[in-house]
Amino acid sequence: MTTRREQTSHESRELILTAAAELFAEKGYRQTTFADVAERSQISRGSIPWHFGSKEGLLLAVLERSVDLIRSGFPEDPGAGAASFDHLRQGADALMRLPTSKLFVTLLVEALEPGSPIHGRYVEIHNTLREHCRRWLERLPLPPGTSAETLAVTMVGAVIGIHQQWLLAPDRIDPMEAVAPLWLLVTGAPPRPSP
Amino acid sequence: MTTRREQTSHESRELILTAAAELFAEKGYRQTTFADVAERSQISRGSIPWHFGSKEGLLLAVLERSVDLIRSGFPEDPGAGAASFDHLRQGADALMRLPTSKLFVTLLVEALEPGSPIHGRYVEIHNTLREHCRRWLERLPLPPGTSAETLAVTMVGAVIGIHQQWLLAPDRIDPMEAVAPLWLLVTGAPPRPSP
Repeated sequence: MTTRREQTSHESRELILTAAAELFAEKGYRQTTFADVAERSQISRGSIPWHFGSKEGLLLAVLERSVDLIRSGFPEDPGAGAASFDHLRQGADALMRLPTSKLFVTLLVEALEPGSPIHGRYVEIHNTLREHCRRWLERLPLPPGTSAETLAVTMVGAVIGIHQQWLLAPDRIDPMEAVAPLWLLVTGAPPRPSP
Repeated sequence: MTTRREQTSHESRELILTAAAELFAEKGYRQTTFADVAERSQISRGSIPWHFGSKEGLLLAVLERSVDLIRSGFPEDPGAGAASFDHLRQGADALMRLPTSKLFVTLLVEALEPGSPIHGRYVEIHNTLREHCRRWLERLPLPPGTSAETLAVTMVGAVIGIHQQWLLAPDRIDPMEAVAPLWLLVTGAPPRPSP
C-alpha cells in the first residue's frame, strides 16, 4: 500500500523531473541551477538533492525518463514488410515532435564532454536504437551486399539528422517525407503512399 | 602591398580564431571566456574585442571559418555516377574526422536557442549542404516516386547522424561503411566496392 507521504514524494519527484527536463532543453544543463528548478516546479530547493543527490543525479534521472518515453514510442515487434516500415516511420515522426527529443540534442553536447556522466548512457541509447532497427532489418530480404548491422547505423543516423534539420527549420523540413526514402535501403523500391 | 602591421594583425586574428574554435569545441561557447582565449592563443585579452567586437562576433567568425573549411572538402562539381558518389563519400568521411566538425555539434545547441545569433547561419549551412546534394542528385536517374529535394534531406540527415554516432562511439561506428548504403537511395543497387 502506498502511504500518503510516499505518494507526495513521488509527485514531487515527477514535478522536479518535468521542470528540469524543460529547463535543460531551454537553457542547457550547465546554465540550469537548483534554484531555477525549484522555481519552475514549485518544490523547495532543498528537496532536490534529497531526491537526486546531485545535479548529475538529476541529469541522469531526466535522461532515464526520456529514454522510457522514446522506448514507448516504438512497437516491441513492428512486424516485417512495407506496413511495418510505415509503422516505424510514424513512430519516428511522433518522437521527433516530442519536446523531449530537443532535450536529447541539448544533452548530446554534454555527453560528448570527456568524462561526462552521461556519455556511457548516450552510447547505450544509440546502441538500443540500432539494435531495435537491426532486429527489424534482419527479418527482411535485404539488397545483396548490405548488412542489417550497417543499415541500422545508416537509418538511425538519418532519423537523427532529419530531426536536427527539422528543429532548425521546421517550415522547410517535413520529417515524414524525408524518412520515407529509407525504405529504398531495404527494398530498392520506394514505399507505396500511405492510404 | 601588405604592411608588417597588417600581417601581424592578420596573424593575431588567425591565432585567436584557432584558439576560440578549440575552446568552443572543448568547453562549449558559454563556458569560454575572453581570458581563456587570450591564454590559449597567447594574444592579449584586450585585442579580442578589437578584432571581433563581442563574444558573439567571435562566435560568428569561428563559424564562418568552419564553413569555408567544410566547403573546401567537397568538390564544386562532383560529376555523376558511382564514381562521384565514392568521391562525395570520401569527402564526407574526411569532414567527419575534422576537429571542426565536433564544433558544429557543440554549437548546434547554441543555434537552437531562441534568438540565437547563429540560428540563421546554421539554417543557411544546412541549406547549402542540401542544395549541393540536390544539384548532384538532379543529374542522376532517381528511383520513381522520389525527388532530389527530399532525397537531399534524407542524405544530409544520414551524414549528420552517422557523424554523431561515430563521435560517441568511434570504435564501434565506421562512417565510410555507414554512408555506403546511401547509394541505394539513388539507384536501388548497392555501390561496387572501392578498388
